[in-house]
Amino acid sequence: MKATAVAGANIALIKYWGNRDEALRLPMNSSLSITLDTLLSTSTVMFDGDLEEDEISIDGTPAEAAVRSRVVEHLDRLRRWAGSEERARVASYNNFPRGAGLAASASGFAALTAAATRALGLSPDERELSSWARTGSGSAARSILGGYVEWRAADRHPDSYAEQIAPPEHWELLDCIAIVSTVPKSVSSAEGHRLAPTSPLYRARLAQVEAALPQMRQAILERDFQRLGELAEAEALSLHAIMWTSRPSLMYWMPETVRVLAAVRERRREGLSAYFTLDAGPNVHVLTTPEHGEQVSRRLAQVEGVQQVKVARPGPGVHLVEQHLF
Amino acid sequence: MKATAVAGANIALIKYWGNRDEALRLPMNSSLSITLDTLLSTSTVMFDGDLEEDEISIDGTPAEAAVRSRVVEHLDRLRRWAGSEERARVASYNNFPRGAGLAASASGFAALTAAATRALGLSPDERELSSWARTGSGSAARSILGGYVEWRAADRHPDSYAEQIAPPEHWELLDCIAIVSTVPKSVSSAEGHRLAPTSPLYRARLAQVEAALPQMRQAILERDFQRLGELAEAEALSLHAIMWTSRPSLMYWMPETVRVLAAVRERRREGLSAYFTLDAGPNVHVLTTPEHGEQVSRRLAQVEGVQQVKVARPGPGVHLVEQHLF
Repeated sequence: MKATAVAGANIALIKYWGNRDEALRLPMNSSLSITLDTLLSTSTVMFDGDLEEDEISIDGTPAEAAVRSRVVEHLDRLRRWAGSEERARVASYNNFPRGAGLAASASGFAALTAAATRALGLSPDERELSSWARTGSGSAARSILGGYVEWRAADRHPDSYAEQIAPPEHWELLDCIAIVSTVPKSVSSAEGHRLAPTSPLYRARLAQVEAALPQMRQAILERDFQRLGELAEAEALSLHAIMWTSRPSLMYWMPETVRVLAAVRERRREGLSAYFTLDAGPNVHVLTTPEHGEQVSRRLAQVEGVQQVKVARPGPGVHLVEQHLF
Repeated sequence: MKATAVAGANIALIKYWGNRDEALRLPMNSSLSITLDTLLSTSTVMFDGDLEEDEISIDGTPAEAAVRSRVVEHLDRLRRWAGSEERARVASYNNFPRGAGLAASASGFAALTAAATRALGLSPDERELSSWARTGSGSAARSILGGYVEWRAADRHPDSYAEQIAPPEHWELLDCIAIVSTVPKSVSSAEGHRLAPTSPLYRARLAQVEAALPQMRQAILERDFQRLGELAEAEALSLHAIMWTSRPSLMYWMPETVRVLAAVRERRREGLSAYFTLDAGPNVHVLTTPEHGEQVSRRLAQVEGVQQVKVARPGPGVHLVEQHLF
């Protein structure tokens, strides 16, 4: 059985950082994101009784050891669920750089989970798919759904899954991504999650998130852009504060990151509707409204050190497609 | 009566950020610093019954309104203490840029307090001098003393003063200051102190500082440089985490700041003993030992965007001098 799925990366407005259960990727806090329409991962999975071991290629080359073992572990979980022992051939393709804090593991594991479960003959509902995707990469739980998505923290595996709180067409926001580096980061998000509780500020952050999340949900439902933007900036800075103050300290910012953040605030003082957020990496996501999108993109592209500006909008959740990668 | 005093700026290893009493500058937490030997403020004060109002010049020009009113308020407090109503002529000179996070207000108010009290005929002891300097600029309390200095938080004015925990000759450390900007910052430290409690992480920081301070004191007493450096970096990042997450968010970093921080960590991986700390500004203080000082300075000067590297060592506390500025 062969199946192929496509999933979009997502940009978290309320971030996931730290697990209550590392192995099952049960997060310490609930989070909230927008699934993006133009940063896509495609995954084709075929189970084959003749294979001696899983064959995994990513972006055209065999997966490096760490990624490979993470994918194999995920396939093992799905095989156990399906009662299968067949090895798989997996090809995954991203239309954007991996490992640079652009959430390729979210879209990648969402697509992999949807393709693999279909190829195994399973028919999971969205909740099951989301909680299974979560076990591969936490934020993949969110990329299962389209539009505006909330992922609930819970103590047990199947109870922690994401749900759509508003479809993509509810609100057309733009995410203009100022890419300042496409070099894979030296410390993975997975390692960062493990370090989170070592920050003396981490418990305070969890309390902050608990207060901010319902406010962010409401800002989305009411299409209150300023409220969303202010909450998103505060939240991103809180995330990076935890990274810097964890032990050892994690520093994902580059000089250009600071330059972009300053530029966003300056443009805002000039009247542009633009707010930044950052994931676990140096690139800056700048949220704006359609009427300001062109100007924001153009101004970002002028900032020294910005290599490229990618524009994304709220997009659909994971979906199966007929065109396979092999 | 005319008197002149010289005081060194200080670099905090455990930072002062936030007040329990704004007017009296009673800090939320105790702090710990090194008084520096080469970043000096000199202040000459002369009280004169013929003056109609205070005449205040800083670095050769009349003080701008905000600085002026802060100095006049401070003189008023000292006049009340001395029972005098005479206006003063004040000249202050800094051998380093003001308002760029290099603690010119600490050394400036320490020198002013020592010169003004002497000119008023008062004979305060060190504790009195320190607590009075504190009311002008919190961290000025520390610049009264030389070497390694601890400033205790307290609920009442005279009880919050600094004391020397080790003299300058106890341990010759170097502070290599990578100056990336000498432009006065757009938000003053005084305003930052007021914003501190708006950070949702602030209470957690206070608990962190309470745990870190005795460890830092011990690292100094035992001359444990690695321990001191690790604590200093964690502490500086915690301070800036509070700034970024306060509302509104304060961002003192420049692109070059991040470049210097990364360079310090890289040099350390190569074997140099060097740790960074930052005050409320974009410039980076790099702590190192005498045997690595020259190499650290040279490498810092090579970092793109570093305009100058100033080197300072533990220096004496405030002292009166015979050479007046006017």
